[in-house]
Amino acid sequence: MKGQVFPRELRLRARAVALGQESPDLLVRDVTVLNVHTGTLLPHFHIATAGPLVAGLSRDEFSPGSQTVVLEGRGRYAIPGFIDAHAHLDEGVVTVPEFLRHALLGGTTAYVTDTAEVGNAFGCRGVIWFLESVMDQPAHVFALVSPMVPGDPQLLPGHRMQPEEVAELLRRAEVVGLGESYWTRVVRDGGDLLTLYSLAEETGKVAEGHGAGARKECLAALACCGIGSCHEAISPEEVKDRLSLGLFTIVREGSVRRDLEGVAALAGEDFDFRYLGLGTDGVNPVDLLRYGVMEYVVQKAIDLGFDPVRAVQMATINNATHFGLERYVGSISPGRYADFLLVEDLHHVGRPQAVVAKGRLVAQDGRLLAPPRRHRFPEEAHRALDFSRRFLASELTITAPPGTRRVRVRIVHQRNDVVTEEQTLDVPSQKGRLTLPPGINLGLAVSTLRPAKWSAGLISGWNLRAGACASSAVWDAPQVAGVGASAEELALAVNRVGEMGGGVAVCEGNQIVAELPLPIGGIISDLSVEEVAARMKAIDLHLRRLGYPYANPFLALRVMGYVGVPRLRLTACGLVRVGSLGGEPVPLML
Amino acid sequence: MKGQVFPRELRLRARAVALGQESPDLLVRDVTVLNVHTGTLLPHFHIATAGPLVAGLSRDEFSPGSQTVVLEGRGRYAIPGFIDAHAHLDEGVVTVPEFLRHALLGGTTAYVTDTAEVGNAFGCRGVIWFLESVMDQPAHVFALVSPMVPGDPQLLPGHRMQPEEVAELLRRAEVVGLGESYWTRVVRDGGDLLTLYSLAEETGKVAEGHGAGARKECLAALACCGIGSCHEAISPEEVKDRLSLGLFTIVREGSVRRDLEGVAALAGEDFDFRYLGLGTDGVNPVDLLRYGVMEYVVQKAIDLGFDPVRAVQMATINNATHFGLERYVGSISPGRYADFLLVEDLHHVGRPQAVVAKGRLVAQDGRLLAPPRRHRFPEEAHRALDFSRRFLASELTITAPPGTRRVRVRIVHQRNDVVTEEQTLDVPSQKGRLTLPPGINLGLAVSTLRPAKWSAGLISGWNLRAGACASSAVWDAPQVAGVGASAEELALAVNRVGEMGGGVAVCEGNQIVAELPLPIGGIISDLSVEEVAARMKAIDLHLRRLGYPYANPFLALRVMGYVGVPRLRLTACGLVRVGSLGGEPVPLML
Repeated sequence: MKGQVFPRELRLRARAVALGQESPDLLVRDVTVLNVHTGTLLPHFHIATAGPLVAGLSRDEFSPGSQTVVLEGRGRYAIPGFIDAHAHLDEGVVTVPEFLRHALLGGTTAYVTDTAEVGNAFGCRGVIWFLESVMDQPAHVFALVSPMVPGDPQLLPGHRMQPEEVAELLRRAEVVGLGESYWTRVVRDGGDLLTLYSLAEETGKVAEGHGAGARKECLAALACCGIGSCHEAISPEEVKDRLSLGLFTIVREGSVRRDLEGVAALAGEDFDFRYLGLGTDGVNPVDLLRYGVMEYVVQKAIDLGFDPVRAVQMATINNATHFGLERYVGSISPGRYADFLLVEDLHHVGRPQAVVAKGRLVAQDGRLLAPPRRHRFPEEAHRALDFSRRFLASELTITAPPGTRRVRVRIVHQRNDVVTEEQTLDVPSQKGRLTLPPGINLGLAVSTLRPAKWSAGLISGWNLRAGACASSAVWDAPQVAGVGASAEELALAVNRVGEMGGGVAVCEGNQIVAELPLPIGGIISDLSVEEVAARMKAIDLHLRRLGYPYANPFLALRVMGYVGVPRLRLTACGLVRVGSLGGEPVPLML
Repeated sequence: MKGQVFPRELRLRARAVALGQESPDLLVRDVTVLNVHTGTLLPHFHIATAGPLVAGLSRDEFSPGSQTVVLEGRGRYAIPGFIDAHAHLDEGVVTVPEFLRHALLGGTTAYVTDTAEVGNAFGCRGVIWFLESVMDQPAHVFALVSPMVPGDPQLLPGHRMQPEEVAELLRRAEVVGLGESYWTRVVRDGGDLLTLYSLAEETGKVAEGHGAGARKECLAALACCGIGSCHEAISPEEVKDRLSLGLFTIVREGSVRRDLEGVAALAGEDFDFRYLGLGTDGVNPVDLLRYGVMEYVVQKAIDLGFDPVRAVQMATINNATHFGLERYVGSISPGRYADFLLVEDLHHVGRPQAVVAKGRLVAQDGRLLAPPRRHRFPEEAHRALDFSRRFLASELTITAPPGTRRVRVRIVHQRNDVVTEEQTLDVPSQKGRLTLPPGINLGLAVSTLRPAKWSAGLISGWNLRAGACASSAVWDAPQVAGVGASAEELALAVNRVGEMGGGVAVCEGNQIVAELPLPIGGIISDLSVEEVAARMKAIDLHLRRLGYPYANPFLALRVMGYVGVPRLRLTACGLVRVGSLGGEPVPLML
């Protein structure tokens, strides 16, 4: 938090509490404190706070005053509040206050979140709006400014954040660095990204990496450019590759991927774990209600055999140190924020009895005591994108060159929720129009910036027998992505998203059967986390019933135009083939 | 190094070398790299540099070009260059280039140095002159700006650095924080120091602590004020106290004190050592030639039973991380400075076969290959202090109240080279003048700022049978300190220091028998390190021959007016009694 300063009066008061000259605001008596700096336990300690800070930490008693809130620890373990090293609150589908309302119960008291999607939706002002929404919350939300707005300016429509805007954002105290950079772009970059990394370096802030599938020399190249981390290792070998190069390695366990099990063999190894962190890479509302946030990740690590102390270190001091935040969060120490949990034993950290954040008891026994500050995005955010384009079914047919009877086309084949393949197929054409062969659905991507570019494509692997869906909750660019069994249904779903001013819609025949409005930039709902989760479940359920064969069609729509993973992606500017050195546009027809 | 930025061209070139597109500048083949992030070994690795940076690090070969310098590692260990976490190059008695000329041979490639003494001598401009002397050297010199100029403004004469000056210095890239603050002052501070700590916090920089003998609640109070470290723990318990409070703990092994042996019981303990660092707290020219710098400290730690990997981590990545420098130094990783040593085995690191710093082979087999840049302090630095005051022996007698025949006086009793006691004694007076009782010497402290305040006192424990000495190489304030067996000799020694424009002088009878000119602020010599060491030895030898009973009278003079250690100190403003909460002036006579 370079640039943040604790007020002098606060420090003076903390000093007075530490010295026993004044009484603490909160006194937690008789706990076994986990010192994450040393990985050792401090039994029968007392924690005395002053405002949001830990002030005293000692085996000696502190005298409570008449205003002191006293919490009897009764020998429970006090562990630092968890830090999500790679959050995506910018695309959590719910607002940050709604997210925190549930997330705080489990003890994730700090988040380092990317802001790429608010950047993609609104440009720089969107990041500022987002930052306003996270201020003065009962948890810490540290932001990363994305150097990838849009994900790839050569391939995707979108706002383009200027270096001066990025520099301005980097100077803010709550901005701790630059968000993830795809290694393919870093390795090719002519200098634009390096300019941004220099700005981060100048302000003493980090630049995060995204090295999915990168070979070692490419990872070294990332480090040479100033990138300090990667959260894309999925095997023990990949983790070690990154550590050998001095890249802080965040093991991901969240809604998009769950990598802990794949790297669990590391648990038994005897090396220094300081450069290993934990993060979610985003938790959607369904998973938030079902699992929680970092408490689930840490518990899973423990269940997979990681030493509990190490698991907690990976979710606290290691993450904090990587981001240069260890003077503020990540440990229970005087002069740092009082963020900690009380748990019955170190092997069971998933349901803390008490959560203290910024010196306040924010949750106890699963009940929220300190509700997040409600926040409304400005009216402008509800009107910033252009959802006015309506489609006729007749527009969504694909024209073939005159006189041809069969055309060879590229098909986006869905391999799982995230990865696609490039397939080719001979498709019959009639009167200059392609006929959809059996098993092939129609895809559509529409930019929500003026002029509203759009592009249609052919999709296999979704297996929609009927119906269609469309979503503006997509990554990397302001677009609506849709898939349908027929042009009529696809047009209906896409048009419904437009009518809502952003959102997700599923239709069957001429009926909308499930929908989720996302009026804030087409990516964020103003509904409660419970309501959003219920609607997301309904959307997934309907689409699986209509034929989608994997778990999470909501996610599949989200990544339809995402050029960060292989292999053929449908964007508003057309098809993009994602290879080992980045994406290139390819025509629909061969 | 917040604020420093590697040039974009350098990063692009490093990337090209990492990717094998360009050939390295230096290629070190087949070494076992110690990865200090994980504490593991990477056998048969190759290190490829680009300019000052490590670019490639791999088991795969790099192709040398026609310009590539190739160093065959032949399986030797490559360990990161050592970092002295608490150096005092500001008071090294020799210039930084002279210091480095020898220090580089042993592989200390980075120094975090206080600048208090150049601040005391010259104020802010002195710090800037010093920073100019450390720029563009073959080693990294990171500076700390002292919040203690002078050591205690209520007790000592001196320049006073203004908050704006400190702020200006903190903004410089090579300044990594504020130098040590005595805990006694921090605990009492009304807010002046906290203002400076806020400036450090605002710029994301550290504030170092000095918690000698502080109880735990006082250490917690330091942390509450924003102090992040202590280098004054002298026992395993004191180390643990500091670690339990989240204070980075620098174990000191240098010319002023050697604490490694006292804390060696920690070596066998199984805890996370990341918050433990190593530093010298200053190495004088005699010790520099005899032992070296950090290579001696690390070797001693290993010899005392510390695991070699841990010992190296304590001298590299741990120190680097504490100062927020881990993106630049402290490990052998792509994108960081290429600072490393080749050693035959991990248990013997004290005589590296090769030293690479900033990508250059700076030393090999004890021979220096890259001489430091010579630097001359500006003329102004030679004339900044006022050494014009000459003393007559008659001035150096102590007057007693008229009519008294015996007076009860305070005596500064030297317990060892550093610590003094307060003793009292009934001393006969004759014609209003005190008679020196047997075994009691005369002390003098003279400020070198106008107006030249001075104060005389009585010293026991030096046991000078004859002769006198005086020195301007003192801590915490611009003063000359002297001790003599007679007023005549004391006047001669002090006057000689004045004639030299600063320095150290020893006389016997009316002969100067040893001297060391220190024309730069009275604290720094322009002679070679070998010459200075020889003269320092001669000074100590003469004084021990004259009766001084401990090892290092040069040091005893240095701390005569130093209010950071117990108990009775003689300053130009009079006697100061140093208690558990700081110093207070006390009169000579009771």
